[in-house]
Amino acid sequence: MKTIIVGVPGGGKTTVLEKAKKKLPNYETIKFGTKMLETAKKQRIAENRDQIRKLSPEKIKELQRKTMKKIKQKENLLVDTHLAVETPKGIVPGMPKWAIEKTNLDRIILIEGEPEEIKKRRKKDKTRKRDDFQLPPKQHQEINRYYAATVSTITSSPIQIIKNKPNKAEEAAEKLVKTIKNNEK
Amino acid sequence: MKTIIVGVPGGGKTTVLEKAKKKLPNYETIKFGTKMLETAKKQRIAENRDQIRKLSPEKIKELQRKTMKKIKQKENLLVDTHLAVETPKGIVPGMPKWAIEKTNLDRIILIEGEPEEIKKRRKKDKTRKRDDFQLPPKQHQEINRYYAATVSTITSSPIQIIKNKPNKAEEAAEKLVKTIKNNEK
Amino acid sequence: MKTIIVGVPGGGKTTVLEKAKKKLPNYETIKFGTKMLETAKKQRIAENRDQIRKLSPEKIKELQRKTMKKIKQKENLLVDTHLAVETPKGIVPGMPKWAIEKTNLDRIILIEGEPEEIKKRRKKDKTRKRDDFQLPPKQHQEINRYYAATVSTITSSPIQIIKNKPNKAEEAAEKLVKTIKNNEK
Repeated sequence: MKTIIVGVPGGGKTTVLEKAKKKLPNYETIKFGTKMLETAKKQRIAENRDQIRKLSPEKIKELQRKTMKKIKQKENLLVDTHLAVETPKGIVPGMPKWAIEKTNLDRIILIEGEPEEIKKRRKKDKTRKRDDFQLPPKQHQEINRYYAATVSTITSSPIQIIKNKPNKAEEAAEKLVKTIKNNEK
Repeated sequence: MKTIIVGVPGGGKTTVLEKAKKKLPNYETIKFGTKMLETAKKQRIAENRDQIRKLSPEKIKELQRKTMKKIKQKENLLVDTHLAVETPKGIVPGMPKWAIEKTNLDRIILIEGEPEEIKKRRKKDKTRKRDDFQLPPKQHQEINRYYAATVSTITSSPIQIIKNKPNKAEEAAEKLVKTIKNNEK
Repeated sequence: MKTIIVGVPGGGKTTVLEKAKKKLPNYETIKFGTKMLETAKKQRIAENRDQIRKLSPEKIKELQRKTMKKIKQKENLLVDTHLAVETPKGIVPGMPKWAIEKTNLDRIILIEGEPEEIKKRRKKDKTRKRDDFQLPPKQHQEINRYYAATVSTITSSPIQIIKNKPNKAEEAAEKLVKTIKNNEK
């Protein structure tokens, strides 16, 4: 693995990433969660994300391990993932130490939205229940930074913070592309 | 060890824990600091908490190690402890890496009080000197979160944040009980 | 190594340290960055700090490793360094895990300036380009705390936060001296 791209639900990470991909033809983007779900479906232990979130920590860890293994070989990979996942059991680390040590991570990119904008987007999203979000977006984004500092220390990876301002996804994408190309040199 | 329950002095952790214990008959609660003091008394190196805080870092580490060993075997344990301890030498980590690695920690619970409420309670507490608290409660609670993110990453443990609002210790206890039962499943 | 002293550019760390040194005759102060530059010059891979910042992460790591080795033996050392370095590649960890593990760090001191004061000082500093600072000083100082919590957990070192208020560098130096002498005992 090379780069992880992280952001809270509703922060605009997916939109920014879509726009950036057009200018990064040599990079493959994968959603860590989607890869995990594929594996879970094959094993017939979960049919959707909600069922994954309810699996035992051991089962989740096993799914993470298998997904990690699949993506480890690939170069030029942008992994769309989470550092701090809200679950009924609390905030679960998306990149725990055992998982980081199995990858060759060399870059952490945080995409941060405006808290008020995030709240609006979440209200519109009918696939999520209101109960899914206990943490105010501002705090959740701060907690992402705490985890990022830990992962950065363990892996020696730099952290790039990209602000996704309302109606400025294009600008954020531009900065994302620049960051990735800057790191190539 | 299973669960650590953490909060700053005056944040209401002990009260919430007392209330929660009634609904968790299968769980044993211990105070890490009290266990440490028992050991220190037996060894005749300290008679009270204040004397412990003034021991050399090596002596403190040895006490932590012995206490850790005693509690490691027990299941269904709620450990009332600290992540960031204010001492004259600065903020000392309550759960340093070497100690975490000796336990089987699987859950971090932060009990956070209202900063203004904490200040009031601290003023009333005659067993503490004003000088004991250099950090404003809001900052201390934030620093607990930073340490929690690190411990969470190292141990793969989820973090649950429980707000203890003024005069709502019962509600906080309810959430604590729910969190612990949720994790049992 | 014994103590690292950390602060953002413009936070007054160097001034405070200068004043403190007069009262700490038995301590040697070194700038980690200056030591790195000396090594880089000898190897003819960089002539100034700016060129160092543009080296590949591997080259930088090698320079850090050599510098770390040189200072490891010394006792009573105050290392003037960074926990989170702003570079075009993002925030680079100044004390990554591999580096910490090569030292015998036992104390982290954060010198924090007033954000508005820092902005003023940076404007006056003609050796830096405006572009060098993307992070607002307040956020950069917070991020230093996140990294400090991680380094503290890994090394079991206490963190001392020293506020450098405008025109009060003398007071901050006093607290620094006291902290260091307190830790000697």
